[in-house]
Amino acid sequence: MAAAAATNLKVIGAWASPFAMRPRIALNVKNVDYEYLEETFAPKSELLLKSNPVHKKVPVMIHNDQPICESLVIVQYIDEIFTSGSSLLPSDPYDRAIARFWATYIDNTWFSSLVGIAKAKTDEEKATASEGLTAGLALLEEAFEKISKGKGFFGGKTIGYVDIALGSCLGWIRVAETLSGSNYIDETITPGLNAWADRFSSDDAVKDLIPDTEKLLGFAKRRFGSPAK
Amino acid sequence: MAAAAATNLKVIGAWASPFAMRPRIALNVKNVDYEYLEETFAPKSELLLKSNPVHKKVPVMIHNDQPICESLVIVQYIDEIFTSGSSLLPSDPYDRAIARFWATYIDNTWFSSLVGIAKAKTDEEKATASEGLTAGLALLEEAFEKISKGKGFFGGKTIGYVDIALGSCLGWIRVAETLSGSNYIDETITPGLNAWADRFSSDDAVKDLIPDTEKLLGFAKRRFGSPAK
Repeated sequence: MAAAAATNLKVIGAWASPFAMRPRIALNVKNVDYEYLEETFAPKSELLLKSNPVHKKVPVMIHNDQPICESLVIVQYIDEIFTSGSSLLPSDPYDRAIARFWATYIDNTWFSSLVGIAKAKTDEEKATASEGLTAGLALLEEAFEKISKGKGFFGGKTIGYVDIALGSCLGWIRVAETLSGSNYIDETITPGLNAWADRFSSDDAVKDLIPDTEKLLGFAKRRFGSPAK
Repeated sequence: MAAAAATNLKVIGAWASPFAMRPRIALNVKNVDYEYLEETFAPKSELLLKSNPVHKKVPVMIHNDQPICESLVIVQYIDEIFTSGSSLLPSDPYDRAIARFWATYIDNTWFSSLVGIAKAKTDEEKATASEGLTAGLALLEEAFEKISKGKGFFGGKTIGYVDIALGSCLGWIRVAETLSGSNYIDETITPGLNAWADRFSSDDAVKDLIPDTEKLLGFAKRRFGSPAK
């Protein structure tokens, strides 16, 4: 399919960051061209420091020379600015509130357990993180059944806001499964999310962006050291 | 002024919670009547547990029997549902992204320093929290000058999204000042925010909601124990 007319649009990201993947998936859903800049971090680029002076973190999206920071803020901006492709947030205000609730839950509550598996230095820390991850995915499985209404995505028939918030973490869920030897998303424990994960990962807007699990595992080991076995 | 037609609207809150104050300020700005339910916590009410099973926390807003949780999600919902009163989020998508960025900053980065003053058990912990609070307010002072453009509020001439996010914390800022013996918002260090705080606190939508500093201080001491001196 032909991309929408190119705009003055850049995304500063990092291949291993689930947060940095979010604007890229959103722009792909909207079928909008952008320039991707992989941040090198050593040292941080002048453009990153200038564009996100508060957090100095990826992702940053720069639209017509104006920087926008925070992945979920960027995704909402993309949804409001680009009318091409499908809508990311639902049109009904209550459904929109529910989508925002779950995206906030993923980032502010659940994510610490996900990264906790890779950061764990002891078996006890790993077990605590693993329990948090499992309990959170059980809630998200239930939310998925309720919100998707059998249409395939949290966003209905197409990828939406919560799909992007959770789906961007799939690579790290696979890493957590390898590190802990447990399944977090599979046919038995989360049948809805299991089919959703396959659907999401193979979508044209996503398939080239989810990092290879082995490569991400190597990154996690370099970043956080050897985890508890 | 006459309130808009009463709707089937309840807010479950707690007087000392800045988060719980947010929906109430937003509804006052919109001039919408609601029923306020003060949560007692011991034990948590059936309505709270049923309405916010994930976090079991205030605030919850219940609109036509549908619960909405997370203070900033509720404020956005109020802005989208009620067209009475002024808009809380700016109409321009970029300005809206900037407002969302600062509200996220307040909750996810700055707030831990604010509550850190009350939670501090050692002088070192208190000093770290105090530095974080001051540094954050310096950033917010700068943002205020840029965003308000001399109109008085982050939201322009009227109270908006960032005003509610930060202003709901003013009672706790006064508590932190008392506990640490430092000024965090005053004429010298944050002249813009100092005038803004007076304007915000005396606004009709707010003035009856900001708790008395002494009463809040008593609450903080009961909740977090005696702080470092």
